[in-house]
Amino acid sequence: MDIVHRIGATAPIEKVYAALTTVDGLAAWWTEDTDGDAAPGGLLRFRFPPGGFDMKVLETEPSRRVLWEVVDGPEEWIGTRVSFDLRTEGEWTILLFRHEGWREQVEFMSHCSTKWASYLLSLKKLVETGAGEPSPNDVRISDWH
Amino acid sequence: MDIVHRIGATAPIEKVYAALTTVDGLAAWWTEDTDGDAAPGGLLRFRFPPGGFDMKVLETEPSRRVLWEVVDGPEEWIGTRVSFDLRTEGEWTILLFRHEGWREQVEFMSHCSTKWASYLLSLKKLVETGAGEPSPNDVRISDWH
Repeated sequence: MDIVHRIGATAPIEKVYAALTTVDGLAAWWTEDTDGDAAPGGLLRFRFPPGGFDMKVLETEPSRRVLWEVVDGPEEWIGTRVSFDLRTEGEWTILLFRHEGWREQVEFMSHCSTKWASYLLSLKKLVETGAGEPSPNDVRISDWH
Repeated sequence: MDIVHRIGATAPIEKVYAALTTVDGLAAWWTEDTDGDAAPGGLLRFRFPPGGFDMKVLETEPSRRVLWEVVDGPEEWIGTRVSFDLRTEGEWTILLFRHEGWREQVEFMSHCSTKWASYLLSLKKLVETGAGEPSPNDVRISDWH
């Protein structure tokens, strides 16, 4: 069971790729509390007011693909993988997102699906306007934040 | 394969239910070009600039659940089902959304997942503030609108 999303941004593909493969880029759309090493084999640490995730970087293919594995975080996330595939369509950079390997379609998965969409909208805003909406100033979608 | 989302609104459950079971309510968050009959057995017609969907209303359980079946629209949607399950958690009305029965995990499914999230954020905005962002004034998420 996977969470999937597709979003487009009118920004150069290199800019979107940089927002996925640098600590400063990630901190500008997902969570300000990001550190670690975004290169293959590195560990990225993302923290939010209620907790966070550690991701091992498995693949980075310039302006094409980024793949992480979740090595620490909520039990439902551990061992799942998050990928971002990029391509150009005319004036658009298209991002295909996948968070795969959920073992059960729990309510938390539904929450994460909506929340990922809101963060991808933040990424779009970042690369198009220069300012995203990363945590702790992200859109609150529900009681689960 | 299903698209799932979870969203919460600080608004009475009856108000969220009304936004899912009246033509005026649906037109205020999904698409302004909505008509038809939102009662069980009725047919709802939703239109957007690039096309639209006809939904047969299968179930409506006041302040609990709404279930539709897609009877016309893009080929990938026909025969799929869309459900909204509601409950109260403290000051929140929680909505669990499911669009189930996709036959293949095509790229259009990823697009619809992100787009559904943006419409559910429009529904949240409608019931919390009185104004949603229905089509044709919805958030453009990509080249596929």
